[in-house]
Amino acid sequence: MEKRILLTECTDDVGLIAKITNVCSLFHFNVIRQDQFASHEDAKFFMRTVIEGNFDDDNSNQTFINTVIGVLPQGATVRLADNHKRRLCVLVTKESHCLGELLMKAYSGALNADIVCVAGNYPELGVLAEKFDVPFKLVSCEGITKEEQEKRMMEVIDSTNCDYVILAKYMRILSPEFVNHYPLGKIINIHHSFLPAFIGAKPYLQAYNRGVKIIGATAHFVTNNLDEGPIIEQDVIKVTHRYDPDTLAKAGHDVEQMVLLRAVNKVLDDKVFIHGNKTVVF
Amino acid sequence: MEKRILLTECTDDVGLIAKITNVCSLFHFNVIRQDQFASHEDAKFFMRTVIEGNFDDDNSNQTFINTVIGVLPQGATVRLADNHKRRLCVLVTKESHCLGELLMKAYSGALNADIVCVAGNYPELGVLAEKFDVPFKLVSCEGITKEEQEKRMMEVIDSTNCDYVILAKYMRILSPEFVNHYPLGKIINIHHSFLPAFIGAKPYLQAYNRGVKIIGATAHFVTNNLDEGPIIEQDVIKVTHRYDPDTLAKAGHDVEQMVLLRAVNKVLDDKVFIHGNKTVVF
Amino acid sequence: MEKRILLTECTDDVGLIAKITNVCSLFHFNVIRQDQFASHEDAKFFMRTVIEGNFDDDNSNQTFINTVIGVLPQGATVRLADNHKRRLCVLVTKESHCLGELLMKAYSGALNADIVCVAGNYPELGVLAEKFDVPFKLVSCEGITKEEQEKRMMEVIDSTNCDYVILAKYMRILSPEFVNHYPLGKIINIHHSFLPAFIGAKPYLQAYNRGVKIIGATAHFVTNNLDEGPIIEQDVIKVTHRYDPDTLAKAGHDVEQMVLLRAVNKVLDDKVFIHGNKTVVF
Amino acid sequence: MEKRILLTECTDDVGLIAKITNVCSLFHFNVIRQDQFASHEDAKFFMRTVIEGNFDDDNSNQTFINTVIGVLPQGATVRLADNHKRRLCVLVTKESHCLGELLMKAYSGALNADIVCVAGNYPELGVLAEKFDVPFKLVSCEGITKEEQEKRMMEVIDSTNCDYVILAKYMRILSPEFVNHYPLGKIINIHHSFLPAFIGAKPYLQAYNRGVKIIGATAHFVTNNLDEGPIIEQDVIKVTHRYDPDTLAKAGHDVEQMVLLRAVNKVLDDKVFIHGNKTVVF
Repeated sequence: MEKRILLTECTDDVGLIAKITNVCSLFHFNVIRQDQFASHEDAKFFMRTVIEGNFDDDNSNQTFINTVIGVLPQGATVRLADNHKRRLCVLVTKESHCLGELLMKAYSGALNADIVCVAGNYPELGVLAEKFDVPFKLVSCEGITKEEQEKRMMEVIDSTNCDYVILAKYMRILSPEFVNHYPLGKIINIHHSFLPAFIGAKPYLQAYNRGVKIIGATAHFVTNNLDEGPIIEQDVIKVTHRYDPDTLAKAGHDVEQMVLLRAVNKVLDDKVFIHGNKTVVF
Repeated sequence: MEKRILLTECTDDVGLIAKITNVCSLFHFNVIRQDQFASHEDAKFFMRTVIEGNFDDDNSNQTFINTVIGVLPQGATVRLADNHKRRLCVLVTKESHCLGELLMKAYSGALNADIVCVAGNYPELGVLAEKFDVPFKLVSCEGITKEEQEKRMMEVIDSTNCDYVILAKYMRILSPEFVNHYPLGKIINIHHSFLPAFIGAKPYLQAYNRGVKIIGATAHFVTNNLDEGPIIEQDVIKVTHRYDPDTLAKAGHDVEQMVLLRAVNKVLDDKVFIHGNKTVVF
Repeated sequence: MEKRILLTECTDDVGLIAKITNVCSLFHFNVIRQDQFASHEDAKFFMRTVIEGNFDDDNSNQTFINTVIGVLPQGATVRLADNHKRRLCVLVTKESHCLGELLMKAYSGALNADIVCVAGNYPELGVLAEKFDVPFKLVSCEGITKEEQEKRMMEVIDSTNCDYVILAKYMRILSPEFVNHYPLGKIINIHHSFLPAFIGAKPYLQAYNRGVKIIGATAHFVTNNLDEGPIIEQDVIKVTHRYDPDTLAKAGHDVEQMVLLRAVNKVLDDKVFIHGNKTVVF
Repeated sequence: MEKRILLTECTDDVGLIAKITNVCSLFHFNVIRQDQFASHEDAKFFMRTVIEGNFDDDNSNQTFINTVIGVLPQGATVRLADNHKRRLCVLVTKESHCLGELLMKAYSGALNADIVCVAGNYPELGVLAEKFDVPFKLVSCEGITKEEQEKRMMEVIDSTNCDYVILAKYMRILSPEFVNHYPLGKIINIHHSFLPAFIGAKPYLQAYNRGVKIIGATAHFVTNNLDEGPIIEQDVIKVTHRYDPDTLAKAGHDVEQMVLLRAVNKVLDDKVFIHGNKTVVF
């Protein structure tokens, strides 16, 4: 008996849960856990169903998916997540805390994924990646156009056959060409602030200058609107007047690495749906 | 079209969600939201389903409930919560913060219940209750046995026809006779500590003596095991060496009132199931 | 033996703490607690000193203050807070949660101040204020200019001889004339968001539309820059995709009332210094 | 100009701050930051003073310390922390998250210390330590008495000339002989629960069985009373009924590593005083 996750998105309608769970029963899949959300303002339905049964036959699985689609309103998206260990490509610049957290958790088995490549626009973090036997690819910005650098980076990413691209403090603004090269939901970024506060550069200096008593971090999917993609996870830490921009950043890094880790874990568990510019996180 | 909440508890089995949602469809109830949990260690199934439709006919509603029961394993508990505004009887001693929070939220409409009676073993809080036009009943312990005092208190409670009894810092240990007089789940207590730490008396002095850096509060259902009933909600606040037992208590009171409020709101929304000595909170 | 608080602000310099504490010793005041902060970027020094001794003689107290000033750099501000119970004037519109929290805490003795007046631009909260025997003044905006309404409100405030004006969800933007009528630090506002996110109107709708996973509240001193005054206290609460603008607001109200309460308590304890557009909070 | 930290502990008395800061002035040390706490119940005085000046002459420094001692009540402890980079010896068993966090932060420069040795009673974490060029010492419990194993471990520790011993999930109960071999304050432990809840073994199973809604972690100095040493830092994370003992542990590990990191950073910054069975943390 194997467990798989059935992910359903469609226009909301009467009786959807019954229809989907009936199909599961018909195919002898036992529902272990089910989470469902319907958005009233735009009549969207989202459901994550953990089912248990025999998934050995790919044709039968496809028939199952088609049968689910068949009972749903037109335009439904139905996905049966397989159980392959997901492959992550991690992009970095110079700061090590987010990459380090991911490497450590992958090393200990607490991250249910393989980090198959670390790529950076500076060489500094290569040593760290290689400590954990992860290949490091330097894709420098030196002496080439942004367009060219992005092209090389996409080649690196695409060669890894990865499931997700994690921007673990990759301090480059991505062009629309880069973003559009990947399906929405494939690139995850950690933003060094509690969005939508302190959008843009030097958020800890901004936070210092504003005299805030809390700083935070935000993990989000990347879209073409800088810092405006669907938020997956946020958290904060309390600070005082004694913090300067440096100690704010140091405290902020601890929040960043934990928020990114939690967001990646949620995505790896197939618990995150994209809903317009928001997320549904089960 | 009216909304109601269907609450189901039974032994876990294959296909329960499909069965229940099918019955909903059969009776033309649209499922608005559904939360489900199955405990693997004891094979218990819990589901809360918000359904929309026509509930005008009590006979039809009962038929609906019976039909749901009919498709479930033996021993299932099925309840269709009606929409009457719940009635709370609040028991107090001398501290006003928890009672005050409940009164204020009921006053503003943020608590979806009527506080129909405040009963105390001291007269101090009568003035406060009456400010909000809530009758206050003094059930003093003076000159009578504990048994007699409890008997009088039960008479007061029973005369109010209340749905829930809220122990809002009622500083008396209840006898088994008192507890057993009410169904499990009817009495909610706020405990002035982060259970299971600092069980018993003077938790803030205990916390001070232990030098903790965090204090908390716990809202739980009352059982015959003092401070051991199923936990509904907990929260904490950070403290430092500068706090003495008095300022710890003052900070703790703010946590207590918010934790109690949230727990009562969860119960009023029919989001809480009792599962052995724990809760399932949707 | 009485306790008083000595508040010192001046240009930073070598030996300030020794100089101030020496003067305390000279006047036979025992230092109970001392908190100090020096800002390096602008060389400002802030110190709060709790001292114990005999303060019966006003002339002697003034001599003490003058002696402290005498040992400090030019331009020092030195204040010996007296122990009169502070007087609060609370401004409201229609939402009761912040006013209610302040009234309840003043009632129970957990707020070390008297609420001497509640003034509102709508009549709704008059009943609540009067439950606690606090006079309510209606200063309606109906049929008069903003200038005239503000003039009347200032007359109400000034007639109360209050120490602080608390904007407890007073949903009016104050004119520079109003703000400048009072010394900086006298007016405290609770902002219904985690500043600097969601500045301006309908923050909970903004938060909903942005899909944030955390909402917050900010208490700050009022300056002529709307929502830009020095922040005293902030806190947040986690939310999910299940929250709509109404339930976000309901959850947000609980944070607002607690953040405002804590900020007011800090100010009443003379623990807050204004430092440019920030605060030092001991 | 160098910065150093002066740490003072003594019986509380009138004028201590003035006396100490006067001596600082006398020796031409400028006070940058000062934190002070006096405990009223046992009349203990604690002060941390960051001073700036010329510390090149060891004799002069000793004269300074002696002069401070000279103005304080008998029995005062005065220490002038030097600026050598502290040396940590980290003890582990099999779980990598706390060790990994310390190694990563030391690697990135965010931990102001050198990890000079990792010692474990199992070999598993040797590979991880060596990735970061930290020597690993296996001190197995196999085939030898507890006494002998502890003797060997003490030899390892003592050979490292370390300033602090960090128990980063070292799952052995230390004998009084081991504990007493080191001065109080040298050994720091991370306890996998929110002390004093769930003392002892399998705290996450205990937490699961109790149905708590929050789990936490506690960093404390080690004394001969198991799990009863002075608490340095605590934090918590919210959990739900959906967590089983394994996912509780996984969530708990993230809290553990952050709480330990913060506690170690506080100790490295000389911000922690031991006060009986509590701490003063500036």
